[in-house]
Amino acid sequence: MLNFTSDYIEGAHPRLLQRLIDTNMVTQVGYGYDDYCQSAKEKIKDACQCPEAEVHFLVGGTQTNTTVIDSMLGIYEGVVACDTGHVNVHEAGAIESTRHKVIPLPNHDGKICPKELEAYLYDFFNFQDAAHMVNPGMVYISFPTEQGTLYSKEELTQISAVCRQYHLPLYVDGARLGYGLMSSECDITLPELAKLVDAFYIGGTKVGALCGEAVVFTKNNAPKGFFTIMKQHGALLAKGRVLGLQFDELFTDNLYFEISKHAIRMAELVKQIVTEKGYEMAWHSPTNQQFIKFKDTDLERIKEHVKYEYWEKCGPEYSVVRFATSWATTEENVLKLREIL
Amino acid sequence: MLNFTSDYIEGAHPRLLQRLIDTNMVTQVGYGYDDYCQSAKEKIKDACQCPEAEVHFLVGGTQTNTTVIDSMLGIYEGVVACDTGHVNVHEAGAIESTRHKVIPLPNHDGKICPKELEAYLYDFFNFQDAAHMVNPGMVYISFPTEQGTLYSKEELTQISAVCRQYHLPLYVDGARLGYGLMSSECDITLPELAKLVDAFYIGGTKVGALCGEAVVFTKNNAPKGFFTIMKQHGALLAKGRVLGLQFDELFTDNLYFEISKHAIRMAELVKQIVTEKGYEMAWHSPTNQQFIKFKDTDLERIKEHVKYEYWEKCGPEYSVVRFATSWATTEENVLKLREIL
Amino acid sequence: MLNFTSDYIEGAHPRLLQRLIDTNMVTQVGYGYDDYCQSAKEKIKDACQCPEAEVHFLVGGTQTNTTVIDSMLGIYEGVVACDTGHVNVHEAGAIESTRHKVIPLPNHDGKICPKELEAYLYDFFNFQDAAHMVNPGMVYISFPTEQGTLYSKEELTQISAVCRQYHLPLYVDGARLGYGLMSSECDITLPELAKLVDAFYIGGTKVGALCGEAVVFTKNNAPKGFFTIMKQHGALLAKGRVLGLQFDELFTDNLYFEISKHAIRMAELVKQIVTEKGYEMAWHSPTNQQFIKFKDTDLERIKEHVKYEYWEKCGPEYSVVRFATSWATTEENVLKLREIL
Amino acid sequence: MLNFTSDYIEGAHPRLLQRLIDTNMVTQVGYGYDDYCQSAKEKIKDACQCPEAEVHFLVGGTQTNTTVIDSMLGIYEGVVACDTGHVNVHEAGAIESTRHKVIPLPNHDGKICPKELEAYLYDFFNFQDAAHMVNPGMVYISFPTEQGTLYSKEELTQISAVCRQYHLPLYVDGARLGYGLMSSECDITLPELAKLVDAFYIGGTKVGALCGEAVVFTKNNAPKGFFTIMKQHGALLAKGRVLGLQFDELFTDNLYFEISKHAIRMAELVKQIVTEKGYEMAWHSPTNQQFIKFKDTDLERIKEHVKYEYWEKCGPEYSVVRFATSWATTEENVLKLREIL
Repeated sequence: MLNFTSDYIEGAHPRLLQRLIDTNMVTQVGYGYDDYCQSAKEKIKDACQCPEAEVHFLVGGTQTNTTVIDSMLGIYEGVVACDTGHVNVHEAGAIESTRHKVIPLPNHDGKICPKELEAYLYDFFNFQDAAHMVNPGMVYISFPTEQGTLYSKEELTQISAVCRQYHLPLYVDGARLGYGLMSSECDITLPELAKLVDAFYIGGTKVGALCGEAVVFTKNNAPKGFFTIMKQHGALLAKGRVLGLQFDELFTDNLYFEISKHAIRMAELVKQIVTEKGYEMAWHSPTNQQFIKFKDTDLERIKEHVKYEYWEKCGPEYSVVRFATSWATTEENVLKLREIL
Repeated sequence: MLNFTSDYIEGAHPRLLQRLIDTNMVTQVGYGYDDYCQSAKEKIKDACQCPEAEVHFLVGGTQTNTTVIDSMLGIYEGVVACDTGHVNVHEAGAIESTRHKVIPLPNHDGKICPKELEAYLYDFFNFQDAAHMVNPGMVYISFPTEQGTLYSKEELTQISAVCRQYHLPLYVDGARLGYGLMSSECDITLPELAKLVDAFYIGGTKVGALCGEAVVFTKNNAPKGFFTIMKQHGALLAKGRVLGLQFDELFTDNLYFEISKHAIRMAELVKQIVTEKGYEMAWHSPTNQQFIKFKDTDLERIKEHVKYEYWEKCGPEYSVVRFATSWATTEENVLKLREIL
Repeated sequence: MLNFTSDYIEGAHPRLLQRLIDTNMVTQVGYGYDDYCQSAKEKIKDACQCPEAEVHFLVGGTQTNTTVIDSMLGIYEGVVACDTGHVNVHEAGAIESTRHKVIPLPNHDGKICPKELEAYLYDFFNFQDAAHMVNPGMVYISFPTEQGTLYSKEELTQISAVCRQYHLPLYVDGARLGYGLMSSECDITLPELAKLVDAFYIGGTKVGALCGEAVVFTKNNAPKGFFTIMKQHGALLAKGRVLGLQFDELFTDNLYFEISKHAIRMAELVKQIVTEKGYEMAWHSPTNQQFIKFKDTDLERIKEHVKYEYWEKCGPEYSVVRFATSWATTEENVLKLREIL
Repeated sequence: MLNFTSDYIEGAHPRLLQRLIDTNMVTQVGYGYDDYCQSAKEKIKDACQCPEAEVHFLVGGTQTNTTVIDSMLGIYEGVVACDTGHVNVHEAGAIESTRHKVIPLPNHDGKICPKELEAYLYDFFNFQDAAHMVNPGMVYISFPTEQGTLYSKEELTQISAVCRQYHLPLYVDGARLGYGLMSSECDITLPELAKLVDAFYIGGTKVGALCGEAVVFTKNNAPKGFFTIMKQHGALLAKGRVLGLQFDELFTDNLYFEISKHAIRMAELVKQIVTEKGYEMAWHSPTNQQFIKFKDTDLERIKEHVKYEYWEKCGPEYSVVRFATSWATTEENVLKLREIL
């Protein structure tokens, strides 16, 4: 049985596991003060070309979004996000559980539109009864988005400019950052991205690690007390070494980017096979998640051989499903799709 | 340099690492629905002799306490705990961050006294202006406590009886549960403990795992929506397999208890050497944390050779420090203390 | 200068003031246990024909919505509301500040559509990844709505039926309840409304009182600890008599309904004059708030003589403004509009 | 039946009621922007000799404490208070419901000790594991305290100095401020108090108003977004005029202080009669609350003629009860105690 359900169905890249084994009995202090965390932080700052950045390691994505957003907002402020944004839909109200509203803007292929963001902010501060409303306090975007789409450099530059005009920090959820940056359609580099935003996280869980996300406050702008806030949010790992080690290895010899590139190549191969076979992509995704429209009757047959993620119904006879690739996807398995589909 | 700072200075027990390696490329569903989690849950229920229990795996201790306590309290209720309890002191206000007060009772060697608990509850419900006050909604204790001490079976039975009389659930923080149960002074078994309490967690992070805590709701009494609440608290690991696998191995062939027993043996050896050398224990601890009173001038010398945890000042010339042992402590290293102290 | 800005620009109905004066030096216990509160509760239960109801008095609308909603939801649940609902827009995130998401449904003239509510719930529980999402825990509607519109008895019956099917309590924000019930287009009575819903509040602030809202849990279903929850939310008035007295008077000799009817008559007169004068209603409102579309150039002139609430821009040359009437509006003042408009 | 239960058993001072009547039909904008609020704010700033102060009107005490404290703390900070402080005991966890811990210091006659405050802060920042703990973010005291006691000018000066040394704002709960300032033992004036603290509130509810508390941020230091935060906390009254009018009158011709002085005179008379009659004061209170130790058998007789507040049991045969006076207490009624006791 093939399995393209998601990008977190295997363990970790073997090089990360090897590091865990090699260092297992070396004693280290806890809570992220270990040598591996320090080394990983330096490598990440180098990769981002942000010498003044502050880097912290957290365990998972929802936890990271919640901790960062809660730490950056005033109590009467909310976070502006796409209506399809992960924080608005699939985090079980984690943001609200810290007392902050997610202020939704309409999505266009999973993205907010810079002009609509500007229009919303202009209207809010000029025409709305702002004192009786949740104030926009920061902007959240995902790169890539939950639909696998990407913001262009131009779009990111515009969103960043709007944010600066209104003095709102811009934060990027990079749960699948590597798969975004390594897309053939991506026209922005990691340092360029880091320059445009105030904070972002580099996803580890979905890009080769057992768990772990690296938050980067790009401009020496980590919120006051962030370490304590991590502890308060249950996001501070006692054995911080586990996170540090993995990111240290991911940012050694470009591993993070190499394995991301592999996943993209596999995703393109999936797309090629799917379209060869006459199926239709539900929408265009240039990253590791491919969304395909199948007849429900075809799915009945296909699911005997392949596991995938059911996405949504699409008219009476069709459904959209997701095929995700990752660092762990083998070309051999993708090629088997030729026979199965 | 020897290191007795804490019980989380190494990685994981080699058998756990080996399981991670062996299963690394096996595909599994996420979020705790994988085969390893299922298997581990069964083994834990067996070990607790609680067939009707519900088991969940979370990542760390503060996160676990917060998620469980938040899920078990009404919004006008607080959790009764020892003033020295971890939730009251060293979790950066995580409990309060979910809107609940920690209601402190005085500690006696790190423990609440059953009679004082009863007196507090009796007074609260009979003489206090309860409608204007945070209502006690559950009771939290640690086993072992933060000072390394243990409740006796008699004490636990009394606390449990008081809780039942007042219809308050009893929850045990078992961050170091193994080290408590394997103490030579422990007179209660895991199944007996499980019977007396409504929920507890079996600590993995400090007892051989990279990370991970297993919450056991002992009586088919998991709060409604607990899975979603875990997600909301950032406590749901995408690669839940990492937690499941480790607990599956810890509860195979008694590993959890064997390694705990080893740590206790090492702690007793530490105590023996320390007292041989004429130093005084700060207080009696029958578990893996030993608290020793040293002259500050002696500490100056000792810290050149051994790392320990500074605990507190104790008069003008003395200090208390903690030596912790764990599954990873070697007899060879403990014996070296003979020459150093 | 005429003033139609809102329904809270004067003090209280003279009969309420008189009661405050008459009873001023009578000593009474605090916190809502006074004689006036008890009497008012009985009168309200009679008016609602809900002998088993539980009534509580709070101070203001946002406070009431927040206290009630927070008390009725589990921590992983949110409140379903219209996107234009007061709780979603104009309460400064009060609901979120208690950790609950407002789940917006599209509005149709300020109302949710029973069929869309049902479709949303059906989809949520059948097709969505509900365990990773905020669960709908109750439904909030306003009667009248923020746009002055009214649900019909048929609509309310359908919404109530959907709620019961999905075991969700239905809660009605009645900040302007009197103005809704006394509308000539209202086809439901207070007892009928009370029967269809689980909780609602009878607005005092906008219907003749200095302040005060009466929450009615219609079916002996007040949440556990509601009194303490009121205290926790800062919603428990020490001199509860102030609220009790006013509601006691409002529910004596039908005062609440008489003054509401008067406001409706004044609103109809406003509408009549406005349309006589050739202006256009922005939308149809059968209650005490009338929304009128004016040319911006006309408004320049009008605002020299009348205060109104600016609502929104409406194309390049027009704006919508609100004229509100209340118990305090005089026919004389309304008739003056004939000359001014 | 006499009634000395509390200082909120009557309505409002007649001059306040008269103002409500006189202005009842004058139209005013809502939410505290009315003329009366503006006028009252100026009078309060004058009385405090704080031209740069910012004044806001809220409805009740718990609400005021919660809104102010929540607005002044970072999310990882708590408020230091006396263990007997109102925020720690009798506000149903309102502070915690905004995610902040109350950090208790031991009370001495209801007061924190400046030296103990300093010692706690010194220890916290020098010896504790501060990054894993709730950080002290502000200091809360009551003037007078819940036990009726008063800080001396010297004590307040010392506490203020400690707060400034540690950059912590000092906030005073003045629910009964007038009764403190008018005590014959009070050695500090309102302007002196205002100078020493960062924020405080002038209690209205217990000192002559129907409801209402005036928060004063003394140094142009109102937290960003405070108005919106009031709204979010349900503390923004639509008819703000009701609060403004009352404070405007209270600060006209010294009314606030005159009625407070009267209450103190009545309290001293109570004390005189009680001691004449051979009863013992439970502790010394120089303000409007007198705490008396009675034999339980005496209380049986007394309670047939006088209502009081039961405070606490005090040994097997005795109890402490509270007699409170207020602006509304008559000398005639106090003198009747001579025959009754």
